[in-house]
Amino acid sequence: MPRPRSDTRARIIHSARTLLRRQGYHGTGLTQVIEHSGAPRGSVYFLFPGGKEQIAVAAVDDWAEELDALLHKTRDMSPSARAWITTLAGHFSADLRSSDFTEGLPVTTVTLDSVPASPALTVACRSAYERWLTTLASGLQTYAVPAAQARTLATLLLAALEGAAVLCRAYRSTEPLDSVSARLLELLPAPVTAGSP
Amino acid sequence: MPRPRSDTRARIIHSARTLLRRQGYHGTGLTQVIEHSGAPRGSVYFLFPGGKEQIAVAAVDDWAEELDALLHKTRDMSPSARAWITTLAGHFSADLRSSDFTEGLPVTTVTLDSVPASPALTVACRSAYERWLTTLASGLQTYAVPAAQARTLATLLLAALEGAAVLCRAYRSTEPLDSVSARLLELLPAPVTAGSP
Repeated sequence: MPRPRSDTRARIIHSARTLLRRQGYHGTGLTQVIEHSGAPRGSVYFLFPGGKEQIAVAAVDDWAEELDALLHKTRDMSPSARAWITTLAGHFSADLRSSDFTEGLPVTTVTLDSVPASPALTVACRSAYERWLTTLASGLQTYAVPAAQARTLATLLLAALEGAAVLCRAYRSTEPLDSVSARLLELLPAPVTAGSP
Repeated sequence: MPRPRSDTRARIIHSARTLLRRQGYHGTGLTQVIEHSGAPRGSVYFLFPGGKEQIAVAAVDDWAEELDALLHKTRDMSPSARAWITTLAGHFSADLRSSDFTEGLPVTTVTLDSVPASPALTVACRSAYERWLTTLASGLQTYAVPAAQARTLATLLLAALEGAAVLCRAYRSTEPLDSVSARLLELLPAPVTAGSP
């Protein structure tokens, strides 16, 4: 029985995500995506008539959705802002270690090598960042960060974690991310403990 | 009179720096570097027998030197850690604006698309980061940041500025860098004012 089309589409996007994150847009060829995914070439052209750029936009949109879902899920599970950011940093560390330091934060590599050259990828990358910043800022407010400070603090958190993941790739170690997340916690409200006033 | 060889070498490295910073290692072809620099093709092969990889390593080494010199120079001119980091963030903002948001922090793009695939670039990128972190950490100590905290604070500063520059490229605005540097100042010792105890 042939696989349904949605499964083929998901496999292509999954392969594109892996390859784009590791080696960027210019370093990733359409043929490489097709081979990595195992999808029939004809299906790729049928599902993505816009070629590599359309696949890359779909991959960025998929990352935007997935990281946003992780931000929401970990926020719901975290009793404090410090616990939330510690959990998020742990996810990024685990991704770096499990990929032998080839995979940092999604979207960074594509932003750097394709924005603004590709208008479609520029829109997709900016939308991804805006979505994450909005979720981070509204999550911080649930931990009693004042609304006027939430957006700039969210920007610092995202920028610092993203930059730290770049350093981790260069050092082949999670130590930069560990150091950075420990220092970021100082900027977050302390957890409310039972018995505190 | 023919240009001396050192001038040709400098032009090739300058072109490689511009192109690598904007579009990464995979997005930059040797022919593009040659055309951008205006150097004779034969000179390029003579000066860089290792081809594109050798040119990219020379570009990363040149960036490492230049940014390190900027770190030292701005430290010497800055009366406080806050003034130092404000001046540095201003330099990165000016680079982004003057390049119409195509040029973020040097070395980020190459790290993401070529480390660890190229062992020579892996060593060059890590050496660049290590040099900057060492200079940042020792500079912070001259502003009375305790030695035990200087390295992790330097790592946060570099990671946050680097990540913010990525966001600036996606947003085509220096606002993320402005927000991030303002929040980073909260982590730095306040300037010593005349008359303070």
